[in-house]
Amino acid sequence: MTYLERVNSPDDLKKLTISELKEYAKEVREYIVKVVENRGGHLASNLGVVELTIAMHYVFDCPRDKFIFDVGHQSYTHKIITGRRDAFARLRSDDGISGFENMSESEYDAFTTGHSSTSLSVGLGIARARDLSGDDYNVVSVIGDGAFTGGMVYEALNDIGASHARMIIILNDNAMSITRNVGAISSYLGKLRLSRRYKVLKTRFKRGINGIPLIGGALVKATEKIKSAVKKQVLSVRMFEQLGIKYYGAFDGHDIGELVYVLNRVKPTNVPVILHIVTRKGSGLYEAECDPVKYHGVTGKVDNVLKFSDVVSSSLADMGSRDNKVVCVSAAMLPSTGLERFRELFPDRCYDVGIAEQHAAAMCAGIASSGYKPYFAVYSTFLQRAFDQLIHDVSINKLPVRLLIDRAGAVGSDGVTHQGLYDLSYLNTIPGMCIMAPRCGKDLKKMLEWSLNYNEGPLAIRYPKGYAESSDEETEDIAYGKWEMLRDSDNGVYVIAVGPNMVEMARGADCGLISARFVKPLDTECLRKISNNGNLIITMEENVGSGGFGESVLHELNVMGAGCEFESFAFNDEICDCRSISSAFEKNGITRERLNKKISDFISNNKKI
Amino acid sequence: MTYLERVNSPDDLKKLTISELKEYAKEVREYIVKVVENRGGHLASNLGVVELTIAMHYVFDCPRDKFIFDVGHQSYTHKIITGRRDAFARLRSDDGISGFENMSESEYDAFTTGHSSTSLSVGLGIARARDLSGDDYNVVSVIGDGAFTGGMVYEALNDIGASHARMIIILNDNAMSITRNVGAISSYLGKLRLSRRYKVLKTRFKRGINGIPLIGGALVKATEKIKSAVKKQVLSVRMFEQLGIKYYGAFDGHDIGELVYVLNRVKPTNVPVILHIVTRKGSGLYEAECDPVKYHGVTGKVDNVLKFSDVVSSSLADMGSRDNKVVCVSAAMLPSTGLERFRELFPDRCYDVGIAEQHAAAMCAGIASSGYKPYFAVYSTFLQRAFDQLIHDVSINKLPVRLLIDRAGAVGSDGVTHQGLYDLSYLNTIPGMCIMAPRCGKDLKKMLEWSLNYNEGPLAIRYPKGYAESSDEETEDIAYGKWEMLRDSDNGVYVIAVGPNMVEMARGADCGLISARFVKPLDTECLRKISNNGNLIITMEENVGSGGFGESVLHELNVMGAGCEFESFAFNDEICDCRSISSAFEKNGITRERLNKKISDFISNNKKI
Repeated sequence: MTYLERVNSPDDLKKLTISELKEYAKEVREYIVKVVENRGGHLASNLGVVELTIAMHYVFDCPRDKFIFDVGHQSYTHKIITGRRDAFARLRSDDGISGFENMSESEYDAFTTGHSSTSLSVGLGIARARDLSGDDYNVVSVIGDGAFTGGMVYEALNDIGASHARMIIILNDNAMSITRNVGAISSYLGKLRLSRRYKVLKTRFKRGINGIPLIGGALVKATEKIKSAVKKQVLSVRMFEQLGIKYYGAFDGHDIGELVYVLNRVKPTNVPVILHIVTRKGSGLYEAECDPVKYHGVTGKVDNVLKFSDVVSSSLADMGSRDNKVVCVSAAMLPSTGLERFRELFPDRCYDVGIAEQHAAAMCAGIASSGYKPYFAVYSTFLQRAFDQLIHDVSINKLPVRLLIDRAGAVGSDGVTHQGLYDLSYLNTIPGMCIMAPRCGKDLKKMLEWSLNYNEGPLAIRYPKGYAESSDEETEDIAYGKWEMLRDSDNGVYVIAVGPNMVEMARGADCGLISARFVKPLDTECLRKISNNGNLIITMEENVGSGGFGESVLHELNVMGAGCEFESFAFNDEICDCRSISSAFEKNGITRERLNKKISDFISNNKKI
Repeated sequence: MTYLERVNSPDDLKKLTISELKEYAKEVREYIVKVVENRGGHLASNLGVVELTIAMHYVFDCPRDKFIFDVGHQSYTHKIITGRRDAFARLRSDDGISGFENMSESEYDAFTTGHSSTSLSVGLGIARARDLSGDDYNVVSVIGDGAFTGGMVYEALNDIGASHARMIIILNDNAMSITRNVGAISSYLGKLRLSRRYKVLKTRFKRGINGIPLIGGALVKATEKIKSAVKKQVLSVRMFEQLGIKYYGAFDGHDIGELVYVLNRVKPTNVPVILHIVTRKGSGLYEAECDPVKYHGVTGKVDNVLKFSDVVSSSLADMGSRDNKVVCVSAAMLPSTGLERFRELFPDRCYDVGIAEQHAAAMCAGIASSGYKPYFAVYSTFLQRAFDQLIHDVSINKLPVRLLIDRAGAVGSDGVTHQGLYDLSYLNTIPGMCIMAPRCGKDLKKMLEWSLNYNEGPLAIRYPKGYAESSDEETEDIAYGKWEMLRDSDNGVYVIAVGPNMVEMARGADCGLISARFVKPLDTECLRKISNNGNLIITMEENVGSGGFGESVLHELNVMGAGCEFESFAFNDEICDCRSISSAFEKNGITRERLNKKISDFISNNKKI
C-alpha cells in the first residue's frame, strides 16, 4: 500500500514520520502530474507547495484551524490530503472537484477562493469572529508573491498590523507569479529572499529536494542566479515590521523537516506573523520548472486552432507598428490575453502592472488623457475589480480606453469564481460605454482595426474563451452602432445573438439571424424594422439576464411601442458552478432545443390565429 | 488692492516675493473660510494645503506641469490661483465650480478626481504618455495620508517603483484622514514624521504659522503630543526606498519658504520621489483645527432634522445591545454613516478599516462565514470599489453580509464623482442579492430590525442623502419580497416608486402608489394584480435606467405576458454633473410635471378608445 493510499485525512498524515512524509510528498507530486496532464489545471503552482501543504496539515489541526489558500490554484495537495484523493482524478469537472478552494465542497476548505489577493482580508474576518466568540483556533493564509501585488493585500496588511489580530500569513515566494516578476514588491521580496539565510538555502539547493528524478538542470541554474544576485544588496525586513507584522524567513519551502520545525515555532503566536517561504514553482517536474509560465495552467490537451487571443496578438502587433499611439496594458496576464508579441515588438509601449486591475484601469485613463490609445486586455471576471475606476476615472472623463475582455461568458473548467457572466451588465450600466461582441476571429480583427480610430469614449470588445473561427464567410465592415444581419426571416422570427457561441447556436434554427456586434448602443434602426406586430424577437447572450443585452432590447422595444413578442435567452439569477461550457448552457436553458421549440410554438400559435 | 485680487493666474503668483506669498496665503485662507461657511464644502482639508498649493504653483509651471490632487477635496487654493477666484464664491453649485478637481472645468485641472487613492495611478499614466512622446513636463500627485490607505496606492507604488517613472508624489500628512488615523500605515507615517527633522519642526511649530489669529491652543497641544511620541522610536525611511522610490521629509507644510526650497530641489528629479509634508488639517481656523472631523465637510447650514444615518445610528446601537453577533464595519466613514455611536458602545465589534472598501467587503465575508452578522455602512459611490468582492467573496458563498448603502441616488453638491446612481444596477446583477429601499425613517428602522434575522444571503438596504421623515403615517411590517401598497388605483394607473424621494414625488399624482421596498426580489404577486390589460404601470427610481428597477419590472411583465402599458422614470445613460438634487431630477425628466402629464395623456387616450 502506498503512502498516497494510506492517507485519507490529516489524522492519517500525522501518523507518519518526517521521512515518510517525504516519500508521501513524492507520491503526491507524481499523482498531481498524472491527473493534470490528463485533465488540465494548474501544475506549476501546485507542485511548488506540496511539502508546504503537507507540513501545514502535519502541524495544524484542519478543519478546526482554518487554511485560506489565496487564489486557491495551489490547493491540490490540500484536497488530496483531506479525503478528496479519488475525486481529484475528476479535477475541474462537474462530477468531480473544483480547481480551487471551495467552501461548498468540503469542510476542510475554510473559504472559496479563485480571484487573487483575498486571503488576508478573509482571514482577518475569520480571526476577528474567532476572537469575538472566545475561540482559539489558528487562521493561516497562504499567499503567493504574485497575489501580493494586489491592492487588497495592502489594505488588509494595514488593518492587520494596526489591530494586532492573531493570524499567520505564509508568503509562498516562488519568484514567479503567473508570468514573471512584476513590480517593486517582487523586487523587494527577491532581495529579502537572498539576504536571509542565504547560506542555509544555498546548501539545501545543492543537496536537491525529494522530487521525481527529472530535476537537475533548472536547479543548477537557480543556484547560479542566487550567487550573482546575493552580491548586490542585503536588506532589512523592516517593511513588514514597520506595518506591525512580525516577519520570519526566508525558509526552504521544499524541506519538510524545516517547515514542520518553523510552523511549530510560529503556531503559538499571539500577534500577526508573516512566514516567508521560498519555493520553486513546478518543483519536481523538469519541464514545469524550466517553463513555469507555460505550465501555470495546463489545458489538458494541445490544440492548434486559432483562438481569439491569437487574433488579438497578431492584430495588435500590426496596429502597433502602424500607430505609435497604441499602448498595451496587462494585469499579470500578458501571454494568456495575447499581448506577449506586442511586448516583444514594442517593449516601451507595453506595461505589465502586476495583479492590479484597479491601478491598470486608472493608469489607462491617465494615458488616454494624454492622447495615447491604451488597450487593456483582461479577463471578464478580473475586470470586475476595476468597476469603480471604469466609472470614476474613465467614463466620467469620456476617455477612449479600450478594454479587450477575454473569457467573457461561461468559462468551463475554471468554474464558479471565474465565470464571465456579468460584464455586459456592469458595462451597460456605465454611461458612454460602447460595447462590442465579435462573432468570429475575422469579426474581432475588424473590430480591433475599427477601434483604432474610435476616440469618443471608452470601448469594450468582449469575446469568450475558445476558438475564433467557425465559418469561412466574410463579415461586414463595421459601422458604429450597427448590427450585422446574417440571414433575413421569412416567418417573422428574429434571433439577435451576442458573440460566436450564440450566433452558432441559432444558425440552424428557422429564423432570421442577427449578430449583435454592438451591445451598446443598440441598433434601433434594425430593431424598428424587425419588431412589427406579429413578429417574435429572441435575444441570446452569455451573460446574466439582469442588466444584460436582452433587458436593454426589451426596454428599447417598449420605448418604441413595438408590437412584437419578445423572449430572452440569458443566464439565470443564480451562481453558476458548472465546470463545462456545455453544462452551463444546458443548466440555464440556453440550448438549440429550447430555441427550436420556442420558434415552432410561436409559429403554430400564429397559424391558429 | 489685496493680493487675492491681484493673483489671477500662476504667472501673477510668480511675481510675488516669499513674504508677499505669506500675506497671500492669509487672504486665501480667509476667503476659503468665508465661502465654505456660506456654501458648504471641505474646510479643514483645504486650509491644510494653502501654503503647499501656493508653493507648488510658485515652483512649477501649471498647466504645462500636471497637478493631480487625490480626492480633490483640497483643490480650493489651486482653483483660486488658477483664474477661478470669483467662480469659487459659487462653489459646488450648477452655475459655479465643482468641489473637486475637474478636467472639464479648467485646463489647469489635469484630471478629474473625487474618489480616493487614484492620483498615483493616473499620474503614472500621464508620466508614461509624457515619456513616450518625448516631452519633459513634471507630474505631481498630491495625496493625503488618509487616501494612502487605499489599495490602489500600493498597486501604483509597486508599478512606479519598478518602472522608475519620473514623477513627484507629495504625501500631505495631516495625521488625520476623514476621521482619525486608521491602520498600520498611518502609524508608520506617524513614527516617520516624528523621527525626521524633529528639531526643525519643533522650532517652527513654536514660532507658529502665518494664519488668522484664532490659532493658539491647538498648536500647543500638537507640540506636546510630538514631545511624548518622539521618545518612542526612531524609524528608517526604508519602506518607500525598498520600493524603489526616493523619500524626502518630513517638512513643515505651512512654511512657504521651506516648501519653495524643497520643491525646487526635487523638481529636476529623474526618478520617482516621495516628498513627505506635514500639515495641520484646518490650519489657521481655530475651530477646524480642534475638530477637523466636524469641519471635514461643512454642510453650509445646520439642521436638526432626522437623517437616515441617524436612524442607522440608533437602530444599530439597539440591535447591538440585543444581539452580540452584530458587528459594524466602516471604510473611514464612521461618523457620516452613523456608526459612531455603535463604536462607542461596542468598540470590540466595530472595525474601521481605512479607505479600503475591497478589504472591508471581503473581511465582512470572512466574519459572516463564522456566524456573525456584519453591517458594512458605506456610500453608494464608494461601494463600487467592492463590486468584485460582492460577487466573488460574498455572493458565491451566499454569505449574509448586510450592506447599508448611504447617499444612494442623486447626491447634490458633491457632484459628478459622487453620484449614487449605479448601485441598483450593479447589485441587481449579483445573484442572490436581496435589495431593499425604505421610503422613510420608520421604514428603515423596520428594515434594519428585519435584517437581523435574514441569514439567507447578502442584503443591501439603500437610502438617499437627506431626511428620513416625511409623514407621520406608520409603515407596514416587512414581509420578504413584498411591496407596500400605499394607495390603490381607481383609474388603472400605478406608480411603483423606489425610496423616499420617488414615493413623495408620486404622492400627489392621480394614481395608485406602491413603495418598492424590495427592488430584488420583485413582488411578482403584486405585479400580477396590477398589470391587467388596459392598465399603466410606471416605475420611478433614483438610478440609471440600464439594469435598474424599471428594467427588471419590464422583464418580469414580459415573462408574465402582461397586457398593461409600461413606462420607467430613471436617470439617463449620461454622466450626471448636476450639483443639486433637484436639478438632477429636472435634467433627467424625473419630475411631478412629467408624471402628471404621462398619467393624464394615458387617461385621455383611453377615454377616446
